[in-house]
Amino acid sequence: MARKSGSSGEKTRAMVEDAAIRLIARYGFAAVSMRQIAREVGVQAGALYLYTPDKQSLLFDIMRGHLVHLLDSWQQHSPPVETPAVIRLERFVRFHIDYHIMRAEKVFISYMELRNLEPENFSEIERLRRDYEHVIEEILTAGVAEGAFEHTDSRLTTMAMIAMLTGVSTWYRDGGRLPAGAIATRYVDMAFRLAGAEPLAEVAE
Amino acid sequence: MARKSGSSGEKTRAMVEDAAIRLIARYGFAAVSMRQIAREVGVQAGALYLYTPDKQSLLFDIMRGHLVHLLDSWQQHSPPVETPAVIRLERFVRFHIDYHIMRAEKVFISYMELRNLEPENFSEIERLRRDYEHVIEEILTAGVAEGAFEHTDSRLTTMAMIAMLTGVSTWYRDGGRLPAGAIATRYVDMAFRLAGAEPLAEVAE
Repeated sequence: MARKSGSSGEKTRAMVEDAAIRLIARYGFAAVSMRQIAREVGVQAGALYLYTPDKQSLLFDIMRGHLVHLLDSWQQHSPPVETPAVIRLERFVRFHIDYHIMRAEKVFISYMELRNLEPENFSEIERLRRDYEHVIEEILTAGVAEGAFEHTDSRLTTMAMIAMLTGVSTWYRDGGRLPAGAIATRYVDMAFRLAGAEPLAEVAE
Repeated sequence: MARKSGSSGEKTRAMVEDAAIRLIARYGFAAVSMRQIAREVGVQAGALYLYTPDKQSLLFDIMRGHLVHLLDSWQQHSPPVETPAVIRLERFVRFHIDYHIMRAEKVFISYMELRNLEPENFSEIERLRRDYEHVIEEILTAGVAEGAFEHTDSRLTTMAMIAMLTGVSTWYRDGGRLPAGAIATRYVDMAFRLAGAEPLAEVAE
């Protein structure tokens, strides 16, 4: 069966993904049926299959789409590779926090539902994840070569930094003690500490 | 109906909790039925109700039990409060990582299934979570007062540190690149960096 294309088809596809994300984030992948997703979108269950062959493909498409878009967005926000590593790290931290707090449900699903990916889908998601981890690892390594960062176990520092930064999306709420920009500034400072760099104010002076 | 007590009852209760943890970590709370848990334990569905009034209570008991046991265990491992903050922070980091990598499924459930707690249960879990966060926050504040740590936003440093340390339980595997003890040593170093303390080797000298 040919998949629908064109603006109306694309719009419905986006609605299917949005409904799936909302329901999976709320109930978990195993508890959500294609029928339930169709009801949420307001289409017949059969119509869903115009957009996705099955629930596994839908989950995989959501998770792959999330990571591909994350990597693309970083490519667009990333300063040129010859930029000093301190500037690149600052930009990365602000990008990562901003991106993740705007998409808390997708981030939640992307960690939580790894368990429900079939092996070949899991491998592909892990590959994309590692591509993203390499972004930080490369900045850390460059910073050490420039003498701006201390030599650390760049692999573990990367894992620590991603966990620390992504953690913001689990507790951040609009209207909390600090606005998102101020939180990001303090996390930039913490990322610099982790990398063994001078605090940003001193760098900027 | 009176709940079973005594060693046989306690043993079955532990089996019920273990089965629930395993199934919820695998499929998510919403997808797991009391019938399924009973089948996993090897008892009749009706017998489950000797141990727990309903699925919500079972989830709450698991999450509360996890946090109460975590806090109790830290009380037992914690050096006296007059111990220098650098020593207490080191001890805390090793304790936290060790505790969490040994219980990856419970940790996973404790974050993932917050969404399925009824409001009063959620409040109680949040209260216990904050008690645990206060453990780090108090060490950080004491370290600043001692002149051992730099002054930081102790609340954000606490959240960053917990996310960073708990993250180990999402990727740690026996037989990986580094044994757990070596990983913990590197995370102690990172926690010291975050707190603005001198690296541990210099402290020890």
